[in-house]
Amino acid sequence: MNAESPKSLVYSEPAALRAAIRAGKFDAHTSGQCPGYAQANLAVLPKDYAADFLRFCQLNPKPCPILGMSNPGDPRIPALGADVDVSTDLCGYYVFRNGEMTEEVRNLKAVWRDDMVAFAIGCSFSFEEALVEGGIPLRHFEQGCNVAMYRTNIATQGAGRFGGPTVVSMRPMTPAHAIRAIQITSRFPNVHGAPIHFGDPAAIGIKDIAKPDFGDAVEIRKGEVPVFWACGVTPQSAIRAAKPLLSFTHKPGCMLVTDLRNSQLAVF
Amino acid sequence: MNAESPKSLVYSEPAALRAAIRAGKFDAHTSGQCPGYAQANLAVLPKDYAADFLRFCQLNPKPCPILGMSNPGDPRIPALGADVDVSTDLCGYYVFRNGEMTEEVRNLKAVWRDDMVAFAIGCSFSFEEALVEGGIPLRHFEQGCNVAMYRTNIATQGAGRFGGPTVVSMRPMTPAHAIRAIQITSRFPNVHGAPIHFGDPAAIGIKDIAKPDFGDAVEIRKGEVPVFWACGVTPQSAIRAAKPLLSFTHKPGCMLVTDLRNSQLAVF
Repeated sequence: MNAESPKSLVYSEPAALRAAIRAGKFDAHTSGQCPGYAQANLAVLPKDYAADFLRFCQLNPKPCPILGMSNPGDPRIPALGADVDVSTDLCGYYVFRNGEMTEEVRNLKAVWRDDMVAFAIGCSFSFEEALVEGGIPLRHFEQGCNVAMYRTNIATQGAGRFGGPTVVSMRPMTPAHAIRAIQITSRFPNVHGAPIHFGDPAAIGIKDIAKPDFGDAVEIRKGEVPVFWACGVTPQSAIRAAKPLLSFTHKPGCMLVTDLRNSQLAVF
Repeated sequence: MNAESPKSLVYSEPAALRAAIRAGKFDAHTSGQCPGYAQANLAVLPKDYAADFLRFCQLNPKPCPILGMSNPGDPRIPALGADVDVSTDLCGYYVFRNGEMTEEVRNLKAVWRDDMVAFAIGCSFSFEEALVEGGIPLRHFEQGCNVAMYRTNIATQGAGRFGGPTVVSMRPMTPAHAIRAIQITSRFPNVHGAPIHFGDPAAIGIKDIAKPDFGDAVEIRKGEVPVFWACGVTPQSAIRAAKPLLSFTHKPGCMLVTDLRNSQLAVF
């Protein structure tokens, strides 16, 4: 992670942040930016892969909740903001060829093609904001690290070339906090929703809870249980496994900041 | 439990069941009667205790959710059914003097006094119906026994002479079912609501999960966790501990069957 910027600079309006990124004036992680607004994972695929991927997301809504998608060749997603252009509005991108990351780029202008389709996929930042507002401490915030993520033995429902295991994020908490967290995150089905498991990691195929497959290990204290949510890394893994000739994603930590308010994503 | 009747006789309308009880034509457990309608625990106290008890219930809504209460001396609770008379409409009662059970009676006519106040307190039957409809198997139903209940080290908030430990009911389930059960029971705050704990029994002061303080032990299978809900036995215990000169309750299993539909109790 090499994106850095003054910690004090927090944009409140997503359109202003996107304009700053587009103008090369913001180059940092988006975590903490535009409080109250939903941030999204980005996945961009050629049209001939996009139909299968859309079906994959609809079959697996918990790990792959679609917040918006573009028309083929068009990098705009007006439903997420009148000005949103996914080829310029994130401050870092990865380019994959045949499922392998080959380049990191500042925008997608040089690599964009007329057949590319963009997907904005819900992100746990939205429900984490609600958890913190609900008085539930999050260990990876306390430890100042990334959330711990694990491959599980829970297979996604395959669609065409897309499939593979469900990836989960894990947050340790007391049972009382876990019950409240289940209530809170149930309100957000479009950003992963309720957990899919708690307790015994082996029950979902996690061999060593101290060794996450992605992100950072966090302490699980006495009296706490690990609580597992379906994670947006699942579709990213599925895309890599499908090996499209060309695909793009956001660079980790550099999300698409949308005009959707997290509170709009709550179903009640 | 000596109340018996033909298993095949299931009343669908609460008013018809209450009329049958009043006429001495029904003398059985109410479990399974009037599907869809809420059944309630009954507690009847002298007026000078009732004010403290009402405050106790309001301070402890999870174990003590009040569905309805009567005016002093009046055994009717019209909010639960136009004809509801709690002195005649249950098929068995216990009479307590100084907190000790002294008599079992068929109705309260001979013991009723002009200063008695009746409380109808929500019952887990309501949320259990929703759990079963939600596809969650309940072990005590499978085993044909009573739910397991335990005294905990979670103190209720005291009010006057009323206080003591929270009593919980326990239902073992897989984590996935527990997550769904938390969602379902969260919809029913007036019938105990979401669980208050899951997992380690010792964390809430339960020494031996195989030895419930009330009800029957049920098997906890591999891959299951015990899930604990606040229980309507809590107010009953508090009343016994408060030792009112005179008080009445329903006989276990012989609940007040109300005109409230369980679906009306759901907050969303």
